[in-house]
Amino acid sequence: MQNQDIDRLIKMIAKLPGLGQKSAKRSVLHLLQNRETLLPSLVSALQNLHDKIRTCEICGNFDTASPCHICTSESRKKTTVCVVENVADLWAIERTGAYSGLYHILGGSLSALDGVQPSDLNIESLIKRLDDYDFEEVILALKATVDGQTTAHYLADRLEGRNLRISKLAHGMPMGGELDYMDDGTITLALKARQNLE
Amino acid sequence: MQNQDIDRLIKMIAKLPGLGQKSAKRSVLHLLQNRETLLPSLVSALQNLHDKIRTCEICGNFDTASPCHICTSESRKKTTVCVVENVADLWAIERTGAYSGLYHILGGSLSALDGVQPSDLNIESLIKRLDDYDFEEVILALKATVDGQTTAHYLADRLEGRNLRISKLAHGMPMGGELDYMDDGTITLALKARQNLE
Repeated sequence: MQNQDIDRLIKMIAKLPGLGQKSAKRSVLHLLQNRETLLPSLVSALQNLHDKIRTCEICGNFDTASPCHICTSESRKKTTVCVVENVADLWAIERTGAYSGLYHILGGSLSALDGVQPSDLNIESLIKRLDDYDFEEVILALKATVDGQTTAHYLADRLEGRNLRISKLAHGMPMGGELDYMDDGTITLALKARQNLE
Repeated sequence: MQNQDIDRLIKMIAKLPGLGQKSAKRSVLHLLQNRETLLPSLVSALQNLHDKIRTCEICGNFDTASPCHICTSESRKKTTVCVVENVADLWAIERTGAYSGLYHILGGSLSALDGVQPSDLNIESLIKRLDDYDFEEVILALKATVDGQTTAHYLADRLEGRNLRISKLAHGMPMGGELDYMDDGTITLALKARQNLE
Protein backbone atom coordinates (compact mmCIF):
# COMPACT_ATOMS: atom_id res chain seq x y z
CA MET A 1 0.00 0.00 0.00
CA GLN A 2 3.01 2.31 0.18
CA ASN A 3 4.13 4.39 -2.72
CA GLN A 4 6.14 2.42 -5.32
CA ASP A 5 8.95 4.95 -5.59
CA ILE A 6 9.41 4.93 -1.82
CA ASP A 7 9.38 1.11 -1.81
CA ARG A 8 12.03 1.01 -4.49
CA LEU A 9 14.41 3.21 -2.46
CA ILE A 10 13.75 1.22 0.73
CA LYS A 11 14.67 -1.99 -1.09
CA MET A 12 17.91 -0.46 -2.39
CA ILE A 13 18.95 0.85 0.99
CA ALA A 14 18.00 -2.42 2.74
CA LYS A 15 20.64 -4.17 0.60
CA LEU A 16 23.50 -2.11 2.02
CA PRO A 17 25.66 -4.10 4.46
CA GLY A 18 24.50 -3.85 8.07
CA LEU A 19 21.07 -2.52 7.13
CA GLY A 20 17.79 -4.39 6.93
CA GLN A 21 14.20 -3.71 5.94
CA LYS A 22 13.35 -1.94 9.20
CA SER A 23 16.34 0.36 9.40
CA ALA A 24 16.08 1.14 5.67
CA LYS A 25 12.45 2.16 6.18
CA ARG A 26 13.39 4.36 9.13
CA SER A 27 16.20 5.98 7.11
CA VAL A 28 13.96 6.65 4.13
CA LEU A 29 11.26 8.17 6.34
CA HIS A 30 13.90 10.42 7.89
CA LEU A 31 15.04 11.46 4.41
CA LEU A 32 11.43 12.12 3.35
CA GLN A 33 10.67 14.12 6.47
CA ASN A 34 13.68 16.33 5.74
CA ARG A 35 13.57 15.99 1.97
CA GLU A 36 14.20 19.63 1.12
CA THR A 37 17.41 19.78 3.12
CA LEU A 38 18.78 16.22 3.03
CA LEU A 39 17.90 14.79 -0.38
CA PRO A 40 19.62 17.34 -2.63
CA SER A 41 22.91 17.18 -0.70
CA LEU A 42 22.83 13.37 -0.54
CA VAL A 43 22.11 13.14 -4.25
CA SER A 44 24.97 15.49 -5.09
CA ALA A 45 27.41 13.70 -2.77
CA LEU A 46 26.59 10.33 -4.38
CA GLN A 47 26.69 11.73 -7.91
CA ASN A 48 29.99 13.42 -7.11
CA LEU A 49 31.52 10.13 -5.91
CA HIS A 50 30.22 8.33 -8.98
CA ASP A 51 31.79 10.94 -11.25
CA LYS A 52 35.06 11.40 -9.41
CA ILE A 53 36.15 8.26 -7.57
CA ARG A 54 38.59 5.95 -9.32
CA THR A 55 40.23 2.70 -8.26
CA CYS A 56 43.99 3.36 -8.07
CA GLU A 57 45.66 1.47 -10.91
CA ILE A 58 48.67 0.71 -8.70
CA CYS A 59 47.40 -0.24 -5.25
CA GLY A 60 43.61 -0.56 -5.63
CA ASN A 61 42.73 2.27 -3.19
CA PHE A 62 39.69 4.50 -3.87
CA ASP A 63 40.56 8.10 -4.64
CA THR A 64 39.66 10.97 -6.94
CA ALA A 65 42.93 10.38 -8.78
CA SER A 66 44.62 7.27 -10.12
CA PRO A 67 47.38 6.67 -9.05
CA CYS A 68 46.00 7.63 -5.63
CA HIS A 69 47.38 10.24 -3.23
CA ILE A 70 49.22 7.56 -1.23
CA CYS A 71 50.98 6.08 -4.27
CA THR A 72 52.01 9.53 -5.50
CA SER A 73 52.91 11.06 -2.13
CA GLU A 74 56.47 12.39 -1.89
CA SER A 75 56.60 11.87 1.85
CA ARG A 76 55.83 8.14 1.98
CA LYS A 77 58.43 5.40 2.20
CA LYS A 78 58.54 3.77 -1.25
CA THR A 79 60.39 0.66 -0.13
CA THR A 80 57.66 -0.88 2.04
CA VAL A 81 54.34 -2.23 0.81
CA CYS A 82 51.57 -3.30 3.17
CA VAL A 83 49.24 -5.94 1.72
CA VAL A 84 45.66 -5.56 2.96
CA GLU A 85 42.41 -7.29 2.08
CA ASN A 86 40.30 -4.24 1.25
CA VAL A 87 40.05 -0.45 1.42
CA ALA A 88 38.43 -0.57 4.89
CA ASP A 89 41.60 -2.24 6.21
CA LEU A 90 43.74 0.42 4.51
CA TRP A 91 41.67 3.12 6.21
CA ALA A 92 42.05 1.37 9.56
CA ILE A 93 45.84 1.35 9.26
CA GLU A 94 45.94 4.96 7.99
CA ARG A 95 43.85 6.00 10.99
CA THR A 96 46.63 4.89 13.37
CA GLY A 97 49.20 7.13 11.69
CA ALA A 98 51.74 4.40 12.53
CA TYR A 99 52.55 3.44 8.94
CA SER A 100 54.09 5.59 6.23
CA GLY A 101 54.74 3.11 3.40
CA LEU A 102 52.64 2.08 0.40
CA TYR A 103 49.72 -0.34 0.15
CA HIS A 104 48.48 -3.14 -2.05
CA ILE A 105 44.83 -4.19 -1.89
CA LEU A 106 44.22 -7.89 -2.50
CA GLY A 107 40.46 -7.64 -2.86
CA GLY A 108 39.76 -10.49 -0.45
CA SER A 109 41.45 -13.54 0.99
CA LEU A 110 41.77 -17.11 -0.27
CA SER A 111 38.87 -19.24 0.84
CA ALA A 112 38.19 -22.87 0.01
CA LEU A 113 34.68 -22.48 1.41
CA ASP A 114 33.75 -19.42 -0.68
CA GLY A 115 35.72 -20.66 -3.71
CA VAL A 116 38.16 -17.73 -3.74
CA GLN A 117 41.27 -18.76 -5.66
CA PRO A 118 44.60 -16.95 -6.15
CA SER A 119 43.49 -15.80 -9.60
CA ASP A 120 40.51 -13.97 -8.01
CA LEU A 121 42.85 -11.74 -5.99
CA ASN A 122 45.21 -8.95 -7.06
CA ILE A 123 48.28 -11.17 -6.58
CA GLU A 124 49.81 -10.91 -10.06
CA SER A 125 49.76 -7.12 -9.87
CA LEU A 126 51.54 -7.33 -6.48
CA ILE A 127 54.26 -9.55 -7.96
CA LYS A 128 54.63 -7.21 -10.92
CA ARG A 129 55.06 -4.25 -8.53
CA LEU A 130 57.72 -6.17 -6.61
CA ASP A 131 59.46 -7.00 -9.92
CA ASP A 132 59.34 -3.47 -11.26
CA TYR A 133 60.26 -1.41 -8.19
CA ASP A 134 62.82 -1.76 -5.44
CA PHE A 135 60.90 -2.84 -2.36
CA GLU A 136 62.64 -3.92 0.82
CA GLU A 137 59.72 -5.18 2.88
CA VAL A 138 56.26 -6.65 2.37
CA ILE A 139 53.98 -6.51 5.41
CA LEU A 140 51.13 -9.01 5.18
CA ALA A 141 48.40 -7.24 7.19
CA LEU A 142 45.73 -9.90 6.78
CA LYS A 143 43.02 -10.86 9.17
CA ALA A 144 43.72 -13.29 12.01
CA THR A 145 41.41 -16.01 10.70
CA VAL A 146 42.13 -19.29 8.94
CA ASP A 147 41.47 -17.70 5.53
CA GLY A 148 43.65 -14.67 6.28
CA GLN A 149 46.53 -16.79 7.53
CA THR A 150 46.23 -19.22 4.60
CA THR A 151 46.49 -16.23 2.26
CA ALA A 152 49.54 -14.94 4.15
CA HIS A 153 51.26 -18.32 3.85
CA TYR A 154 50.41 -18.57 0.17
CA LEU A 155 51.83 -15.10 -0.49
CA ALA A 156 54.96 -15.84 1.56
CA ASP A 157 55.51 -18.94 -0.61
CA ARG A 158 55.00 -17.01 -3.85
CA LEU A 159 57.44 -14.29 -2.75
CA GLU A 160 60.19 -16.66 -1.64
CA GLY A 161 63.64 -16.28 -3.18
CA ARG A 162 63.44 -12.49 -3.40
CA ASN A 163 65.67 -10.19 -1.41
CA LEU A 164 62.71 -9.00 0.68
CA ARG A 165 61.77 -8.95 4.33
CA ILE A 166 58.31 -10.52 4.59
CA SER A 167 56.50 -9.79 7.84
CA LYS A 168 53.03 -10.14 9.28
CA LEU A 169 51.12 -8.34 12.02
CA ALA A 170 51.97 -9.50 15.54
CA HIS A 171 49.41 -11.60 17.35
CA GLY A 172 48.82 -11.22 21.06
CA MET A 173 46.75 -9.53 23.71
CA PRO A 174 44.87 -6.44 22.47
CA MET A 175 45.42 -3.17 24.36
CA GLY A 176 43.49 -3.17 27.62
CA GLY A 177 42.69 -6.86 27.21
CA GLU A 178 42.03 -8.83 30.37
CA LEU A 179 43.24 -12.43 30.47
CA ASP A 180 40.04 -13.63 32.05
CA TYR A 181 37.93 -12.40 29.12
CA MET A 182 40.34 -13.41 26.35
CA ASP A 183 39.70 -16.43 24.13
CA ASP A 184 42.02 -19.42 24.37
CA GLY A 185 43.47 -18.91 20.88
CA THR A 186 44.65 -15.39 21.67
CA ILE A 187 46.19 -16.44 25.01
CA THR A 188 47.99 -19.33 23.29
CA LEU A 189 49.37 -17.01 20.58
CA ALA A 190 50.39 -14.40 23.14
CA LEU A 191 52.22 -17.05 25.15
CA LYS A 192 54.04 -18.46 22.11
CA ALA A 193 55.06 -14.97 20.97
CA ARG A 194 56.15 -13.88 24.47
CA GLN A 195 58.93 -11.30 24.52
CA ASN A 196 61.90 -10.84 26.83
CA LEU A 197 61.83 -7.84 29.13
CA GLU A 198 64.90 -5.69 28.62
CA MET B 1 43.80 10.55 5.35
CA GLN B 2 40.74 9.35 3.46
CA ASN B 3 39.41 11.19 0.49
CA GLN B 4 37.37 14.29 1.43
CA ASP B 5 34.44 13.48 -0.86
CA ILE B 6 34.18 9.99 0.62
CA ASP B 7 34.35 11.42 4.14
CA ARG B 8 31.56 13.86 3.36
CA LEU B 9 29.23 11.07 2.23
CA ILE B 10 30.12 8.89 5.24
CA LYS B 11 29.21 11.78 7.58
CA MET B 12 25.87 12.28 5.83
CA ILE B 13 24.95 8.62 5.97
CA ALA B 14 26.11 8.28 9.58
CA LYS B 15 23.43 10.83 10.54
CA LEU B 16 20.57 8.64 9.32
CA PRO B 17 18.61 7.06 12.20
CA GLY B 18 19.97 3.67 13.30
CA LEU B 19 23.29 4.15 11.52
CA GLY B 20 26.62 5.17 13.00
CA GLN B 21 30.11 5.96 11.81
CA LYS B 22 31.09 2.30 11.35
CA SER B 23 28.03 1.12 9.46
CA ALA B 24 28.06 4.28 7.32
CA LYS B 25 31.66 3.55 6.38
CA ARG B 26 30.81 -0.05 5.49
CA SER B 27 27.84 1.09 3.38
CA VAL B 28 29.89 3.69 1.52
CA LEU B 29 32.65 1.15 0.81
CA HIS B 30 30.03 -1.22 -0.54
CA LEU B 31 28.66 1.56 -2.76
CA LEU B 32 32.16 2.41 -3.98
CA GLN B 33 33.02 -1.21 -4.70
CA ASN B 34 29.90 -1.47 -6.85
CA ARG B 35 29.80 2.14 -7.94
CA GLU B 36 29.01 1.52 -11.60
CA THR B 37 25.90 -0.52 -10.80
CA LEU B 38 24.67 0.88 -7.48
CA LEU B 39 25.43 4.60 -7.49
CA PRO B 40 23.49 5.64 -10.62
CA SER B 41 20.32 3.82 -9.55
CA LEU B 42 20.55 5.13 -5.97
CA VAL B 43 21.08 8.67 -7.21
CA SER B 44 18.11 8.45 -9.55
CA ALA B 45 15.86 6.90 -6.87
CA LEU B 46 16.71 9.70 -4.42
CA GLN B 47 16.36 12.42 -7.05
CA ASN B 48 13.07 10.92 -8.12
CA LEU B 49 11.70 11.01 -4.56
CA HIS B 50 12.90 14.57 -4.14
CA ASP B 51 11.13 15.62 -7.32
CA LYS B 52 7.93 13.63 -6.88
CA ILE B 53 7.07 13.07 -3.23
CA ARG B 54 4.62 15.47 -1.61
CA THR B 55 3.15 15.68 1.87
CA CYS B 56 -0.59 15.09 1.54
CA GLU B 57 -2.35 18.39 2.29
CA ILE B 58 -5.22 16.55 3.97
CA CYS B 59 -3.74 13.76 6.10
CA GLY B 60 0.05 14.38 6.04
CA ASN B 61 0.95 11.07 4.32
CA PHE B 62 3.87 10.97 1.85
CA ASP B 63 2.85 10.27 -1.73
CA THR B 64 3.50 11.35 -5.29
CA ALA B 65 0.17 13.13 -5.28
CA SER B 66 -1.49 15.50 -2.83
CA PRO B 67 -4.16 14.61 -1.74
CA CYS B 68 -2.62 11.15 -1.37
CA HIS B 69 -3.97 7.90 -2.81
CA ILE B 70 -5.62 7.01 0.52
CA CYS B 71 -7.49 10.32 0.83
CA THR B 72 -8.70 10.12 -2.78
CA SER B 73 -9.47 6.38 -2.86
CA GLU B 74 -13.06 5.54 -3.81
CA SER B 75 -12.97 2.26 -1.89
CA ARG B 76 -12.05 3.59 1.54
CA LYS B 77 -14.52 4.33 4.29
CA LYS B 78 -14.78 8.12 4.50
CA THR B 79 -16.46 8.24 7.89
CA THR B 80 -13.57 6.92 9.99
CA VAL B 81 -10.28 8.69 10.60
CA CYS B 82 -7.36 7.01 12.35
CA VAL B 83 -5.01 9.45 14.11
CA VAL B 84 -1.39 8.28 14.06
CA GLU B 85 1.85 9.90 15.14
CA ASN B 86 3.82 9.55 11.91
CA VAL B 87 3.95 7.96 8.45
CA ALA B 88 5.75 4.86 9.79
CA ASP B 89 2.72 4.16 12.00
CA LEU B 90 0.39 4.64 9.02
CA TRP B 91 2.47 2.11 7.05
CA ALA B 92 2.33 -0.34 9.97
CA ILE B 93 -1.48 -0.18 10.07
CA GLU B 94 -1.77 -0.39 6.26
CA ARG B 95 0.44 -3.50 6.34
CA THR B 96 -2.16 -5.35 8.41
CA GLY B 97 -4.89 -4.74 5.84
CA ALA B 98 -7.28 -4.58 8.79
CA TYR B 99 -8.26 -0.92 8.37
CA SER B 100 -10.01 0.70 5.43
CA GLY B 101 -10.73 4.23 6.66
CA LEU B 102 -8.76 7.47 6.38
CA TYR B 103 -5.77 8.73 8.38
CA HIS B 104 -4.55 11.87 10.06
CA ILE B 105 -0.87 12.27 10.89
CA LEU B 106 -0.17 14.27 14.05
CA GLY B 107 3.55 14.64 13.48
CA GLY B 108 4.50 13.53 17.01
CA SER B 109 2.99 13.31 20.46
CA LEU B 110 2.72 15.81 23.29
CA SER B 111 5.75 15.69 25.54
CA ALA B 112 6.52 17.86 28.53
CA LEU B 113 10.09 16.55 28.51
CA ASP B 114 10.79 17.35 24.85
CA GLY B 115 8.72 20.54 24.96
CA VAL B 116 6.17 19.37 22.37
CA GLN B 117 2.97 21.43 22.75
CA PRO B 118 -0.42 21.07 21.06
CA SER B 119 0.48 23.86 18.62
CA ASP B 120 3.47 21.79 17.39
CA LEU B 121 1.16 19.01 16.21
CA ASN B 122 -1.36 18.84 13.35
CA ILE B 123 -4.31 19.14 15.73
CA GLU B 124 -6.04 22.21 14.27
CA SER B 125 -6.10 20.58 10.82
CA LEU B 126 -7.69 17.48 12.40
CA ILE B 127 -10.40 19.58 14.02
CA LYS B 128 -11.01 21.41 10.76
CA ARG B 129 -11.41 18.06 8.97
CA LEU B 130 -13.91 16.93 11.58
CA ASP B 131 -15.78 20.24 11.18
CA ASP B 132 -15.85 20.13 7.40
CA TYR B 133 -16.68 16.47 6.73
CA ASP B 134 -19.08 13.97 8.22
CA PHE B 135 -16.98 11.61 10.30
CA GLU B 136 -18.51 9.01 12.60
CA GLU B 137 -15.45 7.71 14.38
CA VAL B 138 -11.97 8.87 15.38
CA ILE B 139 -9.53 6.08 16.29
CA LEU B 140 -6.62 7.36 18.36
CA ALA B 141 -3.85 4.92 17.36
CA LEU B 142 -1.11 6.43 19.50
CA LYS B 143 1.76 4.66 21.17
CA ALA B 144 1.27 2.96 24.52
CA THR B 145 3.59 5.29 26.43
CA VAL B 146 2.90 8.15 28.84
CA ASP B 147 3.34 10.71 26.02
CA GLY B 148 1.10 8.78 23.63
CA GLN B 149 -1.65 8.33 26.19
CA THR B 150 -1.40 11.97 27.30
CA THR B 151 -1.89 13.00 23.68
CA ALA B 152 -4.88 10.64 23.35
CA HIS B 153 -6.51 12.13 26.45
CA TYR B 154 -5.82 15.68 25.24
CA LEU B 155 -7.40 14.89 21.86
CA ALA B 156 -10.39 13.18 23.48
CA ASP B 157 -10.94 16.34 25.54
CA ARG B 158 -10.67 18.60 22.50
CA LEU B 159 -13.14 16.48 20.53
CA GLU B 160 -15.75 16.28 23.28
CA GLY B 161 -19.26 17.43 22.50
CA ARG B 162 -19.21 16.18 18.92
CA ASN B 163 -21.41 13.39 17.67
CA LEU B 164 -18.41 11.09 17.25
CA ARG B 165 -17.29 7.75 18.54
CA ILE B 166 -13.77 8.23 19.90
CA SER B 167 -11.83 5.00 20.36
CA LYS B 168 -8.26 3.93 21.06
CA LEU B 169 -6.26 0.78 20.33
CA ALA B 170 -6.90 -2.03 22.79
CA HIS B 171 -4.19 -2.83 25.31
CA GLY B 172 -3.42 -6.37 26.32
CA MET B 173 -1.27 -9.40 25.65
CA PRO B 174 0.42 -9.39 22.23
CA MET B 175 -0.13 -12.40 19.94
CA GLY B 176 1.97 -15.33 21.12
CA GLY B 177 2.87 -13.51 24.33
CA GLU B 178 3.75 -15.66 27.32
CA LEU B 179 2.67 -14.42 30.73
CA ASP B 180 5.98 -15.27 32.30
CA TYR B 181 7.88 -12.96 29.92
CA MET B 182 5.35 -10.11 29.94
CA ASP B 183 5.98 -6.88 31.83
CA ASP B 184 3.77 -6.03 34.80
CA GLY B 185 2.14 -3.07 33.07
CA THR B 186 0.88 -5.19 30.18
CA ILE B 187 -0.45 -7.91 32.50
CA THR B 188 -2.24 -5.27 34.60
CA LEU B 189 -3.82 -3.71 31.47
CA ALA B 190 -4.78 -7.12 30.10
CA LEU B 191 -6.43 -8.03 33.40
CA LYS B 192 -8.35 -4.76 33.62
CA ALA B 193 -9.55 -5.08 30.01
CA ARG B 194 -10.50 -8.75 30.40
CA GLN B 195 -13.34 -9.90 28.19
CA ASN B 196 -16.20 -12.32 28.78
CA LEU B 197 -16.07 -15.58 26.90
CA GLU B 198 -19.25 -16.05 24.87
